[in-house]
Amino acid sequence: MTQRFPNADEGRLERGKRALAEIDGRAGQNVIDALADIAPEFANYLFEFPFGDIYSRSGLDLRAREIATIAALAALGNATPQLKVHIEAGLNVGLSREEVVEILMQMAVYAGFPAALNGLFAAKEVFAQRAG
Amino acid sequence: MTQRFPNADEGRLERGKRALAEIDGRAGQNVIDALADIAPEFANYLFEFPFGDIYSRSGLDLRAREIATIAALAALGNATPQLKVHIEAGLNVGLSREEVVEILMQMAVYAGFPAALNGLFAAKEVFAQRAG
Amino acid sequence: MTQRFPNADEGRLERGKRALAEIDGRAGQNVIDALADIAPEFANYLFEFPFGDIYSRSGLDLRAREIATIAALAALGNATPQLKVHIEAGLNVGLSREEVVEILMQMAVYAGFPAALNGLFAAKEVFAQRAG
Amino acid sequence: MTQRFPNADEGRLERGKRALAEIDGRAGQNVIDALADIAPEFANYLFEFPFGDIYSRSGLDLRAREIATIAALAALGNATPQLKVHIEAGLNVGLSREEVVEILMQMAVYAGFPAALNGLFAAKEVFAQRAG
Amino acid sequence: MTQRFPNADEGRLERGKRALAEIDGRAGQNVIDALADIAPEFANYLFEFPFGDIYSRSGLDLRAREIATIAALAALGNATPQLKVHIEAGLNVGLSREEVVEILMQMAVYAGFPAALNGLFAAKEVFAQRAG
Amino acid sequence: MTQRFPNADEGRLERGKRALAEIDGRAGQNVIDALADIAPEFANYLFEFPFGDIYSRSGLDLRAREIATIAALAALGNATPQLKVHIEAGLNVGLSREEVVEILMQMAVYAGFPAALNGLFAAKEVFAQRAG
Repeated sequence: MTQRFPNADEGRLERGKRALAEIDGRAGQNVIDALADIAPEFANYLFEFPFGDIYSRSGLDLRAREIATIAALAALGNATPQLKVHIEAGLNVGLSREEVVEILMQMAVYAGFPAALNGLFAAKEVFAQRAG
Repeated sequence: MTQRFPNADEGRLERGKRALAEIDGRAGQNVIDALADIAPEFANYLFEFPFGDIYSRSGLDLRAREIATIAALAALGNATPQLKVHIEAGLNVGLSREEVVEILMQMAVYAGFPAALNGLFAAKEVFAQRAG
Repeated sequence: MTQRFPNADEGRLERGKRALAEIDGRAGQNVIDALADIAPEFANYLFEFPFGDIYSRSGLDLRAREIATIAALAALGNATPQLKVHIEAGLNVGLSREEVVEILMQMAVYAGFPAALNGLFAAKEVFAQRAG
Repeated sequence: MTQRFPNADEGRLERGKRALAEIDGRAGQNVIDALADIAPEFANYLFEFPFGDIYSRSGLDLRAREIATIAALAALGNATPQLKVHIEAGLNVGLSREEVVEILMQMAVYAGFPAALNGLFAAKEVFAQRAG
Repeated sequence: MTQRFPNADEGRLERGKRALAEIDGRAGQNVIDALADIAPEFANYLFEFPFGDIYSRSGLDLRAREIATIAALAALGNATPQLKVHIEAGLNVGLSREEVVEILMQMAVYAGFPAALNGLFAAKEVFAQRAG
Repeated sequence: MTQRFPNADEGRLERGKRALAEIDGRAGQNVIDALADIAPEFANYLFEFPFGDIYSRSGLDLRAREIATIAALAALGNATPQLKVHIEAGLNVGLSREEVVEILMQMAVYAGFPAALNGLFAAKEVFAQRAG
């Protein structure tokens, strides 16, 4: 499998750092910063496995990956901070606000109306913050 | 919002039936058939809301909708029969097997390795059945 | 199936609006209002399917429907705002406070003590607000 | 709180055994039997807390308690054997088949269509077995 | 099974009260206090079954029991207040902060990175409060 | 952080393979084998992150790690095959059958009686298979 962020001299950690910065921007970095005094090594795992390994794979484009992540986090319904980061990330990699709203409305079918509503209200906050 | 399956003379029920047939094919019809002697009116709701309303909306293409559904069902991990129907549906609307596998692997990040593994094994069964 | 809110000239949307107003009162309307600038069409779906279709069915009385909803939302444990709306709704359609508390305590058996505790604390807030 | 199954000389264990027998019948006893060689003391906890304590409380009638349990187990979606036992129990304490179906259909709103479908198919099996 | 907190003259309620005080300390008592005006009898159930029955069993030491509880609550991800109480409890019965962090990081494997992150941030708050 | 399985010349993949073999034995290898024709690269991720990274960390012993995993998987209740692998693994790294049963019974408190029952029945199957 070729990598989306290929660089022969680059390890998983560096590739993951670049991918996280590109995808999640400031919101991702805030998570990393918050880990510094509780579990700094977990920040490395977060760079390495989700971003250095998974998001860097070339078999699915980043727009599709964020659709999958937004859907999963809205359906699970117990990770609102991460859902907001990925709504932000979805917009960063090319999803329109309308598309984000469609994904969240669709979750009413698979995880119930409360999950969809709570996802939509999370999106509302993210959209409001970006509008500022 | 314009409809993906527009037809001025067509109601939600008919539009949903057409959408379900196009997206889920035989697997969707099997679900409808199984409802006949327990909750036949629920079959109508299933045509109308998920398919007549949501999947028929034009704001997100069917490929993206199936990415969202496969991700959500794999993450929730308690609806294997429906996950299989939607892996099938994803292939019907243009996802490659490789893309389905990528979506499922990505769920390891958001819902854990067991959810990803069980999703991959569901895909394995669907792929095997279609190969025959 | 006859409808709980029958009216030959009334469609699902109108029936759902009447049912939501009767069941959830002001709390339901607040949810609809909050959707206006993010997903106004989702407000229609919320009127139509849950209230115009499901709650309007005559096969189960509203008291029984609210018992089911309070139990499900407390067990899932990831939709506190909706749980509060339905504790309110349960009181509106005839459940006593004691009965609401009994339902929530019972969830300790099926979803664990934390789910029951968090449900009871949600009820405590709703009861306090109505007492004022 | 007075007890539904009062008997001054009876402890929680005995009260729970009577309540389980009355509510779940043979299906409940099968669970107890299956625990004998793995965790016999857990059978006592099952008699004592859910049945000797909770179901024996007088603040909510058994019909309402089974509505709550069927709703919660269908919404959680990861305890099909227990859902079947309580669909059986619901019929034992006075719910009609139609009412059971209504409760399960309603779960589409709160936990998604797959949860409702899987609940309905569990009911279908229970109804078929009782018909025999 | 012998009891961890044996005392021939002591019933489940008293044993549970002693166990809760020893394990959860002030945080456990706060939960009991908060139940006083909504469901005082549920406080007794909380003393009796989890603490008087389960935690008082001698087959698994309290350190192991708190490992199990912290892992389960972090994985479920919908009971943050209870997770904090049990991170506190884990430290009370001999887990080091490093061990608590290891348990929470491990949940990334079984329940996903968001569950692990939210568990780590809960631990960060508990650690900060105890440091004061 | 020193590693539980240190070897200067060894990478994450090799360390993970050794850890998986030691902890999960044949059951772990079966999972890897089943991935070969659907997602062979996911087998590498499974060696690398859970086993090469997390289980190889020295901050928590393997007995404690398996307590955490058994508790989490029983509480989540939607990954029975993985729960069985880790009940097996727990026995491999020093947990007694009695301790496994205690962990599973305790989950009744945090995830409800059905989760505990289904965990106990999974353990019953594992114990029976090893007895042969």
